[in-house]
Amino acid sequence: MVPEFSALHTAMMQRALHLAASAGNTTSPNPKVGCVIAHGEQIVGEGFHVQAGAPHAEVHALRQAGDLARGATAYVTLEPCSHTGKTPPCANALIEAGVAKVICAMVDPNPQVAGQGLARLQAASIRTAHGLLSTQAQALNRGFLSRIQRSRPFITLKLAASLDGKTALADGQSQWITGDAARADVHQQRAASNAIITGSGTVLADNPQLNVRGVACLQPPVRVVLDRSLRSPVDAQIFDTSVAPTWLFTAKEQDTSAYAARGVRCFVWEQPHTDNSLQFILHTLAQEGINEAWVEAGSVLSAAFIQQDCVDELLLYQAPKILGAAAIGLLPLQADASVLSQASHWHTVSVSTLGNDIKWRLRHGSHVGTHGEILV
Amino acid sequence: MVPEFSALHTAMMQRALHLAASAGNTTSPNPKVGCVIAHGEQIVGEGFHVQAGAPHAEVHALRQAGDLARGATAYVTLEPCSHTGKTPPCANALIEAGVAKVICAMVDPNPQVAGQGLARLQAASIRTAHGLLSTQAQALNRGFLSRIQRSRPFITLKLAASLDGKTALADGQSQWITGDAARADVHQQRAASNAIITGSGTVLADNPQLNVRGVACLQPPVRVVLDRSLRSPVDAQIFDTSVAPTWLFTAKEQDTSAYAARGVRCFVWEQPHTDNSLQFILHTLAQEGINEAWVEAGSVLSAAFIQQDCVDELLLYQAPKILGAAAIGLLPLQADASVLSQASHWHTVSVSTLGNDIKWRLRHGSHVGTHGEILV
Repeated sequence: MVPEFSALHTAMMQRALHLAASAGNTTSPNPKVGCVIAHGEQIVGEGFHVQAGAPHAEVHALRQAGDLARGATAYVTLEPCSHTGKTPPCANALIEAGVAKVICAMVDPNPQVAGQGLARLQAASIRTAHGLLSTQAQALNRGFLSRIQRSRPFITLKLAASLDGKTALADGQSQWITGDAARADVHQQRAASNAIITGSGTVLADNPQLNVRGVACLQPPVRVVLDRSLRSPVDAQIFDTSVAPTWLFTAKEQDTSAYAARGVRCFVWEQPHTDNSLQFILHTLAQEGINEAWVEAGSVLSAAFIQQDCVDELLLYQAPKILGAAAIGLLPLQADASVLSQASHWHTVSVSTLGNDIKWRLRHGSHVGTHGEILV
Repeated sequence: MVPEFSALHTAMMQRALHLAASAGNTTSPNPKVGCVIAHGEQIVGEGFHVQAGAPHAEVHALRQAGDLARGATAYVTLEPCSHTGKTPPCANALIEAGVAKVICAMVDPNPQVAGQGLARLQAASIRTAHGLLSTQAQALNRGFLSRIQRSRPFITLKLAASLDGKTALADGQSQWITGDAARADVHQQRAASNAIITGSGTVLADNPQLNVRGVACLQPPVRVVLDRSLRSPVDAQIFDTSVAPTWLFTAKEQDTSAYAARGVRCFVWEQPHTDNSLQFILHTLAQEGINEAWVEAGSVLSAAFIQQDCVDELLLYQAPKILGAAAIGLLPLQADASVLSQASHWHTVSVSTLGNDIKWRLRHGSHVGTHGEILV
């Protein structure tokens, strides 16, 4: 049963969620967490988790509150941790500070916590409640929840097309389709991700850097190149690891030593079945602590992500241009309509203009609820 | 030089524009016109033109004002007429009522007026001004202005596609692509038009009624069938003229007697050149008094409208579905990129959600200014 929460409690948790959302992509593999400590309407401390390895949200808020934490209520967007990781358990810190009550938005699904944080608080006679604004808290940590609950990152696929659904002219030219505002938005999206996934086709065709430019980003996302046949030239820009880290997935018979010499981390891409070859990649990325991944690839790899049911969110940037029938189609999916009807349960989340272009955000209905929460 | 107008004048003209916009598609071939008569802030009369043949906006407003029109200011969205058409000249009515001043948003480009209305008022010692909110007035009457200035209706092309730019499955199935909200919006758009243009391909494939359903519409738009080879079956629903009028354009060698017997008006489609075969149609529609036409056709005729540069506004309804590479593309334009770059100067006006679908409104940049005014 979900307990009733007062308007004051709700306002405080909204503040804590707002704080949590202040963090960039740097908390990964940890979740984004915010904390507010208050006596009634009087806030005495607040904080958020900035970066993995650095103090948790509760610690920042408790430090700010000092002695005023005693008898206060702590609002936390995620259940306080009960285990010692890179930092000591937050449940202990809250107990030591003498807070009277802890309200959290949601229980931490991490098996190392999973209710034990609340249990430890209760054992110390601290009143606890949870479930306040849980949908918002789940949406905020869709990447963390996906990694913990599904052993894969939350995947956003970027697509760009003309108004007639083409990605490039027949000769392959594509970089001019969308305008400056859309390109700037893409860099914002990259900066919010922990990894940027692409394929060898894009490396060969465009030799992109696939880094974040023009946007503040403390922790450059890892560039992940999927290249079974190792077609990507070792001198490609994406393998310059002084710009950002790069990981390479390739078949085990490939010699990756030249790439490794440039600082690239090389993974063997095991794929017992081609029809789910991406599952292995995504599982590996989750094991490496990637919460959110952004796929920016050509039409073949993009179609494979859709066909293998590996896309949670789809961002389609569309330019008001007509490229004509000879141009290259957006998604070379060859499946028939009966297969497609299963593969196309998409929900429109929002649409907006970006300069002269539009940005259409869609969610895969089977994975994500209407409020953005992960459904697993 | 544009005269300076006060905030009061602007507010009054906004009211007059709002009144003008109240009219549906029934003023055609006339423009939409609104009129407010006021002493300072005090409105004493207002009206709008409802239907061709019925009194003009000024007459309604003067009737309401009665003796209070004497010494008042009349705000009219279009220059008062100076000629006797189906009703007597409005300039005379304003003079007889004794108004002191007439402010209009724009001069009437109709050669039968074209400044003569203002001249007649000035000759009767009434002060006049024009140019107040002229951009909005032009946008309101884009259809009328297009017909008068370009001898063709304002053309809106409706397109519907999946997110991957397909209009139908490979077997031709298409009617399920967009949802209820988009379909309801299409009926709103039809109701705002004077004519709905389609081709024989659509008649053969879908046997549509192409009438207005579920939306109030006093004057059903004329259905216009373009059918050079007279492929459309005479018993097709679109030729049931008890539902709405139907006009048929076909080559002169075709026998149209069976269609005429059902009440269809038959026109000979003269087309000296196939690369501008639509110009003749649009010129004829303008001569018949059509201000705004809505094109709802298959991909071949839609592409011809674009390629022959006959589209002013484009409405693309897109559904969050993926139909795959085997499905039918949105626009079978075969032109190369150099031609396309000329044919694709589109500007995004707006984009919004309609249920689970999106509606993207675009204007052809060479024809229409940023405020929707016709550039000729």
